[in-house]
Amino acid sequence: MTVSIAHLGPTGTYAEAAAIAYASWLTEETGQETILCPYPSIAQTIKATAQGKANIAVVPVENSIEGTVAITLDTVWQLEILQIQQAIVLPISHALISLAPNLNTIKTVYSHPQALAQCQGWLEEFIPGVKPLAVNSTTEALQNLNQDIYAGAIASTRAAEIYHLPVLAHPINDYPDNCTRFWVLSLQPSTSGTHTSLAFSVPANVPGALLQPLQMFASRGINLSRIESRPTKRSLGDYLFFIDLEGDASQTFVQSAIAELAAYAETLKIFGSYKIFTKLP
Amino acid sequence: MTVSIAHLGPTGTYAEAAAIAYASWLTEETGQETILCPYPSIAQTIKATAQGKANIAVVPVENSIEGTVAITLDTVWQLEILQIQQAIVLPISHALISLAPNLNTIKTVYSHPQALAQCQGWLEEFIPGVKPLAVNSTTEALQNLNQDIYAGAIASTRAAEIYHLPVLAHPINDYPDNCTRFWVLSLQPSTSGTHTSLAFSVPANVPGALLQPLQMFASRGINLSRIESRPTKRSLGDYLFFIDLEGDASQTFVQSAIAELAAYAETLKIFGSYKIFTKLP
Repeated sequence: MTVSIAHLGPTGTYAEAAAIAYASWLTEETGQETILCPYPSIAQTIKATAQGKANIAVVPVENSIEGTVAITLDTVWQLEILQIQQAIVLPISHALISLAPNLNTIKTVYSHPQALAQCQGWLEEFIPGVKPLAVNSTTEALQNLNQDIYAGAIASTRAAEIYHLPVLAHPINDYPDNCTRFWVLSLQPSTSGTHTSLAFSVPANVPGALLQPLQMFASRGINLSRIESRPTKRSLGDYLFFIDLEGDASQTFVQSAIAELAAYAETLKIFGSYKIFTKLP
Repeated sequence: MTVSIAHLGPTGTYAEAAAIAYASWLTEETGQETILCPYPSIAQTIKATAQGKANIAVVPVENSIEGTVAITLDTVWQLEILQIQQAIVLPISHALISLAPNLNTIKTVYSHPQALAQCQGWLEEFIPGVKPLAVNSTTEALQNLNQDIYAGAIASTRAAEIYHLPVLAHPINDYPDNCTRFWVLSLQPSTSGTHTSLAFSVPANVPGALLQPLQMFASRGINLSRIESRPTKRSLGDYLFFIDLEGDASQTFVQSAIAELAAYAETLKIFGSYKIFTKLP
């Protein structure tokens, strides 16, 4: 069977680079063939996999500079049925790509909102007054360059090579230690690993709502590597909490913490246990 | 003295509506005259106020659907010197504004990233395949309509009136209970109120890093209305925590919690105590 891997497209995105890394790992581990399936948005990438149109989705979940990719958390919470198979951390190094003769002639810069945010200091310093325009992906941004010589795009040098476009500056991210964590999602049950992700809502606005869950983990010596709040979308001040814990859901102390949390939470969703792979630059 | 109030522009934004609400309140309370000063980005709005170019900044900090406005938290943390004078909660009701004869002919939709995200379900349903383009503000989006009859923009009906542009659909937000909380910031010390905001970092990655601060507040019966993590931008997995607590920084039990937190935190920044005003639709 050929494994289809959905990712944010078109070809050349950072998500595709993460999907390629996962595909190589999978082929090496299992001998399975893979095929990459680009989708126009992160939400559509995840939904296609939930509907069985693709076997795997590789999506960004957090960047070291800009933080959470909210659409990923919101969609995974909503759809409920996907499980995390693996996390991949990739270094991110942005380039300013343009057909303009030099930086001074660039009037607008297209990119994904996360990439624009990760380079905002550089843009202010080197192309002051430039107008940022956010599109669905870093490589969708490149499609604007052929129509407009005074436009620039922020994407990877890999994308510039794929589309035969010139790099005017690189690297341009404001912080050198820029990396993104991706989740590999599928309808298969997750296997096992060093980390477990879950999310829960609590009965509306009880005082100390987050304290008790944190105590459930701390009292069992379970470290939480990440705590993220997202709105429930019911009313302002009403939150879901996403937690990554260090441990596997099959360990008895993790199981007992999760059982205690299930009794306390209004809704609890477990997204699986998995290993984190880090690719060096 | 005329009080200058900086906000995200151009005229017609939701931030301007919040600035107008604050200006009326200020004139009623103190008799002071006010003048509105639009800025092209939220970061520039906050920075201008920190540099004394404007007396007050009114900026969005959280939406009930899309969550945190990350640039506001990051800039306020970075600049350090601004204090919150007030919070304002405004209902948000989006309209699809366009010169196109009908929805079917619209190819691209411009707006602020938050507004695009708050209407993504509606866009998928009623203009499937439309290309979202994110710009700096909802009213900057309107500037594209005169050049392109097949473009739409998401902004308020107030903005449509100001610019004499037709509303094709309203309301189009995916969730009816959509509201945004704004902070009123200035270089003046904050006064007093029902809520206090602060943020802190902890020595790198200690287990249970957030549990102890939460216990410091819970043990004194202080309720936290919001907990938000943001990356420190040092490395993935290293966070700042922004907290809104219910209480005034002059209350002795709040003071003692803050003193305990100051001893524990790597860096602690207090953004002041203030009242929250809610405007009804």
